[in-house]
Amino acid sequence: MKIGILCTGDEILTGKTVNTNYSHIAKRLVEYGFEVNWGAVVGDQHEAIHRAMELAASSSDAVIVNGGLGPTLDDLTQEVAANVAKVELELNQGWLDHIASWYHSRGRVMPENNQKQALLPSGSELIDNPIGTACGFALDIHGVRFFFTPGVPKELYMMLDQEILPRLQNLRGVSLHTHIKRFHSFGIGESRADKMLAQVARMAENSRIKLGFQSHYPQLETKLVANTTTRDPPEMMGPIEDEIRNCLGNFIVSEDDQTLEQNICQILQESGTSVSIVEMHTAGLINSRLHACDEQGELVKVGIVSQTMGDLHDLFQLPNDEWTQPTVTKRVATLASQQNNSTYGLSVLTERYLDEREQGGIEIHLGISKNGDVEYRKSRLPGSPNWTRLGAVELGLDFLRRSLSGLPMHELIDFEQH
Amino acid sequence: MKIGILCTGDEILTGKTVNTNYSHIAKRLVEYGFEVNWGAVVGDQHEAIHRAMELAASSSDAVIVNGGLGPTLDDLTQEVAANVAKVELELNQGWLDHIASWYHSRGRVMPENNQKQALLPSGSELIDNPIGTACGFALDIHGVRFFFTPGVPKELYMMLDQEILPRLQNLRGVSLHTHIKRFHSFGIGESRADKMLAQVARMAENSRIKLGFQSHYPQLETKLVANTTTRDPPEMMGPIEDEIRNCLGNFIVSEDDQTLEQNICQILQESGTSVSIVEMHTAGLINSRLHACDEQGELVKVGIVSQTMGDLHDLFQLPNDEWTQPTVTKRVATLASQQNNSTYGLSVLTERYLDEREQGGIEIHLGISKNGDVEYRKSRLPGSPNWTRLGAVELGLDFLRRSLSGLPMHELIDFEQH
Repeated sequence: MKIGILCTGDEILTGKTVNTNYSHIAKRLVEYGFEVNWGAVVGDQHEAIHRAMELAASSSDAVIVNGGLGPTLDDLTQEVAANVAKVELELNQGWLDHIASWYHSRGRVMPENNQKQALLPSGSELIDNPIGTACGFALDIHGVRFFFTPGVPKELYMMLDQEILPRLQNLRGVSLHTHIKRFHSFGIGESRADKMLAQVARMAENSRIKLGFQSHYPQLETKLVANTTTRDPPEMMGPIEDEIRNCLGNFIVSEDDQTLEQNICQILQESGTSVSIVEMHTAGLINSRLHACDEQGELVKVGIVSQTMGDLHDLFQLPNDEWTQPTVTKRVATLASQQNNSTYGLSVLTERYLDEREQGGIEIHLGISKNGDVEYRKSRLPGSPNWTRLGAVELGLDFLRRSLSGLPMHELIDFEQH
Repeated sequence: MKIGILCTGDEILTGKTVNTNYSHIAKRLVEYGFEVNWGAVVGDQHEAIHRAMELAASSSDAVIVNGGLGPTLDDLTQEVAANVAKVELELNQGWLDHIASWYHSRGRVMPENNQKQALLPSGSELIDNPIGTACGFALDIHGVRFFFTPGVPKELYMMLDQEILPRLQNLRGVSLHTHIKRFHSFGIGESRADKMLAQVARMAENSRIKLGFQSHYPQLETKLVANTTTRDPPEMMGPIEDEIRNCLGNFIVSEDDQTLEQNICQILQESGTSVSIVEMHTAGLINSRLHACDEQGELVKVGIVSQTMGDLHDLFQLPNDEWTQPTVTKRVATLASQQNNSTYGLSVLTERYLDEREQGGIEIHLGISKNGDVEYRKSRLPGSPNWTRLGAVELGLDFLRRSLSGLPMHELIDFEQH
């Protein structure tokens, strides 16, 4: 069943308001196994709305219209809907009484222009709005069911879940269940993943499971989506998931709603361990991402964020200029865990470089200490400062994840200079 | 001149990604005096994109298409555009060489499927993308100029400003000049700003200058936009700007493209001073925001990010439980500047609280030291942990700005419990 979404309003059309109502409606529909086939935005102009409704009726099996149900002159939805459906507007006395008592219960008198909100196209089914004065309604236009919803987000959300999704499921007849599986990986670019999973893509296609990628640099998301008529996922869902785990291997940093940093915090929590982090030229993002998911503040101890090697030498009283980068990195990782009494010490020290072709990049020195042992790795990422900073942060977090999980510590990643 | 915007991609269609690209494009077009008359979203399906392009060509004077220029199979834009325009795809050797050297300069070999990104509909005008492998292009379809842009936000933003808006202005013939002035303030909510600037709003309206607000919690943006046929801004632009500066006073933290943290770094730079920051329960965001604009790493010295008071007591060897919060805050600010040899020491220490109505919030202790003098301020922000954390970070940065600029240190802000 194909559903179109039509959003009205100058605020949305001109970009002043980001259209989160659209994403909310679409996401809920997809979760319920409906196919969203089209989205449109038009302003508060009669002709534009008219045209968009005609178009929606010719493209989809059902349509959700959002916005334009308010009391002011530029709220045109009911009027245009009646026009397109070639019916008249009729006063819904029940809803008018409802609005009047809504105002009365708040010690106010209903302004005259709110009457407009009780005018519905003839033949409409009224849809209740328990928390506002704009009712929703449903109407057949050229044989397609249209659902009209208010633009206020919390009114829309409630009406969608309580009134409209059940009606859409009735219309569809079958109740479909949607199964979504997501893998987050670091170190494999989209083109390489595409190749590595060619076999999986064929398996998925044969089982009517949709495989897709989304690149959120520096991570890549690999997603499976399937709709079934029973509560259970398709038989092949499990085997295909296993095959993805198999192909992407230890590059997978987390699954579903979990983030890399949540995964790290979970491992620290479960093993009763903690970490202290010293980072240089990463805008403190390694500490800050981990802090955000360490609610009790027990897993990540005091962190040091520095911008120069000189500052670090002073702070840790290291001998100047005598030591090589690997030695400094290891020493700092060890001192970080010792000074803060944490199980692990992670140091991520970076420096910009220019290579022989005068292209810039970042050199990253990674050190992790545990019980006196220190693991070291060096990496080079080419690119702009902001871009490589993101890469360095991810590399640092991933180095920690690999250490905590006993995985290989030196896997090359796609973004790295080999 | 009416412009349509067509966004492609399953992620956008299904609501997984909120369509901020749309709002960005629309907002820029409106700022430049164009009328956006239509927005649409379709998924990665040939037929749907085809139909949407046909429709766009019949509705608008120019169209901006976003997304679908990547190297993978579900990136269909060039192919469909060629189809709709009834032309063939042609290899653009120049762009292919560009992609190959892009990979080469990063020490990598171009994957074969990236070739696809150099296939353009015959007759297209190539539009440069200086920071990615997806070029943009322009093409006439049924007599309407279409501009094709990549879905990666920073590539889109750059291409829109540098390449597409100038071309649209040429198409329009009249060259309108757009003058934009922005003020960023912290501490004044939108309703209060609306009232404070009522007189300014009237001045602006009389001078055909558009005054608008946009709330990006915890900051508020106040914006003036005017379009003129000459290069000069309207005569009243200057006086109206002064009046806004006058009304919002020391709550203005920066203007135009400058951020609060850039403003702080600029003052530090110009006065040859530096700061060290200790922050607690702020996810390290004060250090991280300042680091991001301290390119040489000379203005912001080593920072400490902590999650518990106990950790700080240990690190700075403070006497346990003997000292009140103000004393600890001041001491930490002083130690921070002493240990790191910086001009200023800033400490931002926060704690969650529950008030008598069992509503939560955050208590913030702010200290700033210079030459042995320490200024202290306490504040309470009600709200959820994430919300108040953002407020605390802004309050800390603003405290530093006020100190650096010799402004009053104790101005109450709207979000604060009075």
